[in-house]
Amino acid sequence: MPRPSVREVILDTAVAELHRTGFAACSVDTITKAAGVPKGSFYNHFKSKEALGAEAVARYAEGSGWGDGEPADMRAVERLRHRFELMRDVVIEHEFTRGCLIGNMGAEQADHSAVIRAQVDVSLKGWSESIGELILTGQAEGDIAAGQEPERLGRFMLNAFEGTLMRVKVVKTTEPFEDFFGVFFDVLLCQ
Amino acid sequence: MPRPSVREVILDTAVAELHRTGFAACSVDTITKAAGVPKGSFYNHFKSKEALGAEAVARYAEGSGWGDGEPADMRAVERLRHRFELMRDVVIEHEFTRGCLIGNMGAEQADHSAVIRAQVDVSLKGWSESIGELILTGQAEGDIAAGQEPERLGRFMLNAFEGTLMRVKVVKTTEPFEDFFGVFFDVLLCQ
Repeated sequence: MPRPSVREVILDTAVAELHRTGFAACSVDTITKAAGVPKGSFYNHFKSKEALGAEAVARYAEGSGWGDGEPADMRAVERLRHRFELMRDVVIEHEFTRGCLIGNMGAEQADHSAVIRAQVDVSLKGWSESIGELILTGQAEGDIAAGQEPERLGRFMLNAFEGTLMRVKVVKTTEPFEDFFGVFFDVLLCQ
Repeated sequence: MPRPSVREVILDTAVAELHRTGFAACSVDTITKAAGVPKGSFYNHFKSKEALGAEAVARYAEGSGWGDGEPADMRAVERLRHRFELMRDVVIEHEFTRGCLIGNMGAEQADHSAVIRAQVDVSLKGWSESIGELILTGQAEGDIAAGQEPERLGRFMLNAFEGTLMRVKVVKTTEPFEDFFGVFFDVLLCQ
């Protein structure tokens, strides 16, 4: 198996470091040191820290595990619950730290970096469309109330989850997750 | 009228600068320069940048305008809508930038500063309790569906709004606000 390229090592390290510390708090020097590569090699692979930040968001979104390895016969409403539970469990495993790198980068950098903002937009859009499709299928399967517009509810569900992740980082308990799952799965999707 | 003290000038400037740029991206030097006070005076008034950050969150929360100047005879559900509309309009006025300083500081600093995390927690808790009380009153007035637990719904509504503000910064349109108001006021509070 070939060794991962310097570029790949830098990118994977950036995902971890940006997730742990945030964008402004994390220098190119921190990333190359943590990656164990010469600082001088950075600009051979990335145009700027911003360009790396945008690629890190895309890499994180691809590797989120959303929808991985589900039984083919799972109903859409159960898929939806299962996927959000997986996202929740990762945060619990990390002792209520870090949250979602996509949302963190949006909150911190959307006003300051056009390239990061654009990638966060693409990643959130893909994610909320996936939620909307599950809601549509769940409506067709008769498990989700039919009255609501699935695309809107998909966007809202993702935004509500991103706010939930922020609140979880602050309170360091599962309460915001319980609020999220309770309102969505016991009320909103049943109406 | 006496001139505001150096301490007050630093604090008000910090609210504006932290809101505009974020915590890590904003140095003590930036704040004292923007405030027009000597950098050396900073530590006479604040123990650390973190301590200032926490005070800035508290100052921002106090000055949010939430509930200011409402007619005494407004019904709770209309108060709730009116207050969130005011928060929305401030963001639109600032061309979809900045979001909420409390949520931004939570997302960026909750894992890194115990003193900022504690203040964000207090400010969000006060805010969601206020929402919960309006929901309870709205239920008693018969305008909000009675089936749901007002405190939980208050916490959830705030978390969903914080995620909405993050998404607004990213998409730079009113769509996330429309999703939020649509789901809450046309569906969730009516069920």
